[in-house]
Amino acid sequence: MSGEAGAATEAGRGGDDGIPEIGVGVVGTGFMCQAHVNAFRTLPYMAYPPPARPRLRGVASRSLAGAQAAADRYGFERAHADWREMLADPSIQLVDNCGPNNIHAEVSIAALEAGKHVLCEKPMGRNAAESRQMRDAARRAAGKHMVAFNYRFVPAVRKARLLLEQGALGEIYHFRARYCQDWLADPEFPRAWRLQQALSGSGVLGDLGSHIVDLARFLVGEPTVVNARLKTFVSERPLPENPTERGPVDVDDAFVALVEFDNGAIGTLEATRFAVGHRNANMFEINGSKGSLRFNLERLNELEVHLCPDPSNPQPGFRSELVTEPGDPFIEWWWPVGHIIGWEHTFVHEIHHLLDAIVNDYDVAPYGATFEDGWRCDVILEAITRSAADGGSPIEIEYAP
Amino acid sequence: MSGEAGAATEAGRGGDDGIPEIGVGVVGTGFMCQAHVNAFRTLPYMAYPPPARPRLRGVASRSLAGAQAAADRYGFERAHADWREMLADPSIQLVDNCGPNNIHAEVSIAALEAGKHVLCEKPMGRNAAESRQMRDAARRAAGKHMVAFNYRFVPAVRKARLLLEQGALGEIYHFRARYCQDWLADPEFPRAWRLQQALSGSGVLGDLGSHIVDLARFLVGEPTVVNARLKTFVSERPLPENPTERGPVDVDDAFVALVEFDNGAIGTLEATRFAVGHRNANMFEINGSKGSLRFNLERLNELEVHLCPDPSNPQPGFRSELVTEPGDPFIEWWWPVGHIIGWEHTFVHEIHHLLDAIVNDYDVAPYGATFEDGWRCDVILEAITRSAADGGSPIEIEYAP
Amino acid sequence: MSGEAGAATEAGRGGDDGIPEIGVGVVGTGFMCQAHVNAFRTLPYMAYPPPARPRLRGVASRSLAGAQAAADRYGFERAHADWREMLADPSIQLVDNCGPNNIHAEVSIAALEAGKHVLCEKPMGRNAAESRQMRDAARRAAGKHMVAFNYRFVPAVRKARLLLEQGALGEIYHFRARYCQDWLADPEFPRAWRLQQALSGSGVLGDLGSHIVDLARFLVGEPTVVNARLKTFVSERPLPENPTERGPVDVDDAFVALVEFDNGAIGTLEATRFAVGHRNANMFEINGSKGSLRFNLERLNELEVHLCPDPSNPQPGFRSELVTEPGDPFIEWWWPVGHIIGWEHTFVHEIHHLLDAIVNDYDVAPYGATFEDGWRCDVILEAITRSAADGGSPIEIEYAP
Amino acid sequence: MSGEAGAATEAGRGGDDGIPEIGVGVVGTGFMCQAHVNAFRTLPYMAYPPPARPRLRGVASRSLAGAQAAADRYGFERAHADWREMLADPSIQLVDNCGPNNIHAEVSIAALEAGKHVLCEKPMGRNAAESRQMRDAARRAAGKHMVAFNYRFVPAVRKARLLLEQGALGEIYHFRARYCQDWLADPEFPRAWRLQQALSGSGVLGDLGSHIVDLARFLVGEPTVVNARLKTFVSERPLPENPTERGPVDVDDAFVALVEFDNGAIGTLEATRFAVGHRNANMFEINGSKGSLRFNLERLNELEVHLCPDPSNPQPGFRSELVTEPGDPFIEWWWPVGHIIGWEHTFVHEIHHLLDAIVNDYDVAPYGATFEDGWRCDVILEAITRSAADGGSPIEIEYAP
Repeated sequence: MSGEAGAATEAGRGGDDGIPEIGVGVVGTGFMCQAHVNAFRTLPYMAYPPPARPRLRGVASRSLAGAQAAADRYGFERAHADWREMLADPSIQLVDNCGPNNIHAEVSIAALEAGKHVLCEKPMGRNAAESRQMRDAARRAAGKHMVAFNYRFVPAVRKARLLLEQGALGEIYHFRARYCQDWLADPEFPRAWRLQQALSGSGVLGDLGSHIVDLARFLVGEPTVVNARLKTFVSERPLPENPTERGPVDVDDAFVALVEFDNGAIGTLEATRFAVGHRNANMFEINGSKGSLRFNLERLNELEVHLCPDPSNPQPGFRSELVTEPGDPFIEWWWPVGHIIGWEHTFVHEIHHLLDAIVNDYDVAPYGATFEDGWRCDVILEAITRSAADGGSPIEIEYAP
Repeated sequence: MSGEAGAATEAGRGGDDGIPEIGVGVVGTGFMCQAHVNAFRTLPYMAYPPPARPRLRGVASRSLAGAQAAADRYGFERAHADWREMLADPSIQLVDNCGPNNIHAEVSIAALEAGKHVLCEKPMGRNAAESRQMRDAARRAAGKHMVAFNYRFVPAVRKARLLLEQGALGEIYHFRARYCQDWLADPEFPRAWRLQQALSGSGVLGDLGSHIVDLARFLVGEPTVVNARLKTFVSERPLPENPTERGPVDVDDAFVALVEFDNGAIGTLEATRFAVGHRNANMFEINGSKGSLRFNLERLNELEVHLCPDPSNPQPGFRSELVTEPGDPFIEWWWPVGHIIGWEHTFVHEIHHLLDAIVNDYDVAPYGATFEDGWRCDVILEAITRSAADGGSPIEIEYAP
Repeated sequence: MSGEAGAATEAGRGGDDGIPEIGVGVVGTGFMCQAHVNAFRTLPYMAYPPPARPRLRGVASRSLAGAQAAADRYGFERAHADWREMLADPSIQLVDNCGPNNIHAEVSIAALEAGKHVLCEKPMGRNAAESRQMRDAARRAAGKHMVAFNYRFVPAVRKARLLLEQGALGEIYHFRARYCQDWLADPEFPRAWRLQQALSGSGVLGDLGSHIVDLARFLVGEPTVVNARLKTFVSERPLPENPTERGPVDVDDAFVALVEFDNGAIGTLEATRFAVGHRNANMFEINGSKGSLRFNLERLNELEVHLCPDPSNPQPGFRSELVTEPGDPFIEWWWPVGHIIGWEHTFVHEIHHLLDAIVNDYDVAPYGATFEDGWRCDVILEAITRSAADGGSPIEIEYAP
Repeated sequence: MSGEAGAATEAGRGGDDGIPEIGVGVVGTGFMCQAHVNAFRTLPYMAYPPPARPRLRGVASRSLAGAQAAADRYGFERAHADWREMLADPSIQLVDNCGPNNIHAEVSIAALEAGKHVLCEKPMGRNAAESRQMRDAARRAAGKHMVAFNYRFVPAVRKARLLLEQGALGEIYHFRARYCQDWLADPEFPRAWRLQQALSGSGVLGDLGSHIVDLARFLVGEPTVVNARLKTFVSERPLPENPTERGPVDVDDAFVALVEFDNGAIGTLEATRFAVGHRNANMFEINGSKGSLRFNLERLNELEVHLCPDPSNPQPGFRSELVTEPGDPFIEWWWPVGHIIGWEHTFVHEIHHLLDAIVNDYDVAPYGATFEDGWRCDVILEAITRSAADGGSPIEIEYAP
């Protein structure tokens, strides 16, 4: 881009200000790419001064035209039809893997081996074995690695984590998480690619279940055993290309699971695309000896809090707190108290954390999810699948070293 | 009571009005007795004209003083120290068993064999075997038999049932019920009698779990298989009589279960006394192809409704409906629209139903719970216990004939 | 009633127990009579032991048949076609005036002059002048006098009052009350008697406005000045007797008012029958320097509480508290924590308070509304009417001695 | 910006794509500048393709250092210590006035006279006379003019407007708006500049009241008459520079008003900084013959809807709808259904609308607020002030031509 053609100068850049620049290459051009790009572009002036200034060096897609369209729209300097080509660009330090699930492993491992930092969308691998290869590659590599479990970066969720760390809830007894969507409730909804295992890998378990499994680990601790049921409610659906014919659905529509944690808490996990009335309700509730917390992604600025510092004098009810207070996580970057933020802000927080970890050389854990976390999540999802295959019999969670 | 000493005339009695009188004998003098008596006393003028006019002939307790105190307070004509003596009173047609769980079976069977109608508090028996004896006695007897699952008689719950009967929710996919109380969350709460199996039979499973298992059957259908976990979070508690010493807790503090229904729906069931913030939150949610319903006993006058008659055009959100409309179940007996009712009204509805069934000689099912229902509930609770004993392995529900 | 014919013995009566009996005569047989009778009949065993045992001596209606029907249904000992006849009965100590508004004054004054205690439904008089006559009669008489502003006896409202008395909210800044119903929103709803001034006296102002004006005084203090607007949205409606014709509506459909209080707080008051979606939403909110409270009659068991003991460290949000705790007002008479009560329970509390004041000879104020309160309410309603007639110009509230 | 120094290419630019560029100059560097800049920077790639590509040509502040800091942070090409200098830049077509209230008029009028398009933050003028000068200047000028009443651009608010336009609510009866904040509830909060009339112009009336007055006009119609009260609860506060001394507060802390609309609806308006528990609760409710709507800015993604197409068959309750559906206003630019947006998105919508109006040469009304709207708002605010000065006497709203 030349000055003549130019428009806005790069935001967050005051010339020679000592803030390092980090070259970024994104794989994929879809909806997640858009959310990540928005974070890269806005954090330098919102979270000011930024730990680093991301520079959108390249974007890769299967088609050059697609990559070029994304470059035009989002301001990448170069478009690539081959992610390998992009990885070869030495100006790129961070590879952001927003591609389809089936290239998560290959791209991420190659990027790590090329000495890049890697951010990978969830679910990390297509199965635990693949995720383990990614985890192992991350162990061997010098780069930072992060799996994009962005709900860890909702201010209310981080606040919940901090309250738990401080012991504000006391001994934890119960965890319940369910992620309810509704777009498959109509039996006449067509058999989209997400409903064919060959294309999608899995159904709701990987898509929504991975989020709540990660939150369970983030908030409560390690599960030790699960019992689960998977269900496909509608086994045949109209073909998109020919609605008079029907094709089989071979992925899970919903799952329910029981879980026991290493700290003695018990819980239920559930995800479904068949819960009409809910569009994107990622909900959890935690009960401890001194307090309870409730959250719903559809009201992500709120945390429902019951704190009872003196358990012998219990109080009724929850307080619905807007998590936009001075001092609430990430809020200093945004607006005055009571002015809410949206879903995409989670990526600003997440990517800021990653850039900060890169620049200041610390592990993205425990607040960010590493490839170790991504793999552990997949171990649990696999245990759920195995339990369901055996009628819900208990499967112990074991993390191979 | 003599006319001189008298006070209010019997309510709902206009002399020779052709409304039959039914003599009632109550076993037990505690909190449930109070709720039942209130129903017997108020229904004749609230649900006017009543199907029958209950006459509080007798009350039985272990101690004559206790029975006499209840008679004085509630207006029973006679006090009995022995329920057998009360059963011998030919003026009593209906025996209302509000005694402790350990006499549910004995009293109910004896009453049925004596030709009485029987209302028995829940949980029906101490175990499925005992409940089966009660069910068998009911089959042999001529009297009506009902187990007091009063939440079937919440207007919002009956309305949910009616909507389900009409198919307004379409195909049912999900059921979730949890009954959350909080009174044991404090580890220093003393070891009450309810926490000793020898005295209480079971913990939360029989106490709260029985309610949600009955609602699951009432609303969705027969469970076919369960996986469950039981948990005792606090295994020792201070002795009430000597708080410096601790004694063991040998009942379940909480349970979680997965369930599959004969119509293909799946669900989760949970009950706990460790969910601070919730006092008496008996909650359920049902999702079907055309609609969803939500309920919470703490707001028992409300039903949250999502109806989507055209599933191809989904709408977001729930409508919080006050179930006090003209035409809503039981509401004609009460107040103008928007004037809410309370918990004890469920007993008015329940006992009205029983009296009507007696007078008009029909089965209390399907809207009331029979001894068959009470037994089936206990079969499921027992399956939950067995599953939990085996790590959550699946237990199929089988009802012996 | 003889023992032979008898049914339930009088509840709450254990023979010679020293609890005094109070003879009650009720004027009117409608919905309010039912609510009051229910309170008289249930309080002796629910609020046990009761301060007095009410005895339903008589009921008066314009027609003897109507009175007899009420006597048959509710258990009054005698039916009267003339309330004067009933007042002459020396066994009646308490006259409960549930008749139409146009006999509130006449009956109440006569009863007071006859030495009776009087409970009068709201609104007290048809105008402030009439209410003042009632107030003056009450001043001259020895009997207790109470106007049935039953919402003072909602546990959550009493709790709000207690919190305010304790200063828990600090300096009071704002009060907002609105009472929203919806039954007139349809312009085709017929012109009922309530819509004709000659029959009803006034529209929403007296019916619903009186409740919120009383709550404003009960909770915040004396208004000093009002500005108001009254509105009749639908000036003609179909005649009930002949829907093809229309007749004029000459009462107010809605009012809005500004109010300033003697303690410096300001507020808004509003009532309407044109707010679809609300059935019976009597709502208020109070803001003080240290806290805020919110209430809605449609969820009368709940109080939304924001307490901020340290104003320099403000917190966000409200806590939705179920007012069913041990220690919450009136709750000891009812059920375990979390088991909610209904609208009619307010009358149990109200009448219990009156009986206690009679037996123990204290003034029903400040928790009950006296005839002084009833008159003051009408002074304010009249000021609202006068302000509205003058385009909302300020009218100062002056209570003539 | 040179390629060497560069980072991200300008987003939303694919070279010679025919999308016009609009040069933007912003006055002011504070929090509103940040919100506007974010909109300018993100809309080209979020609302893709944009109607125009804004280019951040200049920023002006009182101090060059401040302007330069903003330029560095936000990417403006030039920093100006004098807004007049910036106006002289011919590459600037749009002047965005985010300066303090006391330069709203001067800058805006000068910009209009210089042939610029103008976006001005609210409240428009310091009083109606000043706003009228701005309105008159806008009438004379060729440029587009818009006052930044951004809450018109909340998707839920626009949806409410569309429902009203379609007549979905029928005849409108009631409007209630209140804007509650809490930051002054503590009497010890210092006397900030906003509490001194000489610096702030007014108190809550201009700051928060202007928003709800604009929404009243946007949603319901023109007010014809108001009655109002203003209140200063805390008349002296600690001086920020010396907390042991106190200085006078001479602006309004709160106001309440009655309003009547030209379509016959009545309403209440209120704003306060003394409502603890509320951080930024800009709330309204509308009741019509066929429906009601409720909104709260703290949950800006939701609209509570009661629609009753057949008023003779009323239904209870509201449906809480997430306004993130396909087809909901502005949502196509954002994320999948159920993924909520935040407060700053309103500026993206607002500025997109302005750019589109510039490029396609149409009036920003009726969905955007013109300087005519800004002036009318101030006329109403002034009527409120005058009414309050006269004890709440009615003041008719008259818009001089």
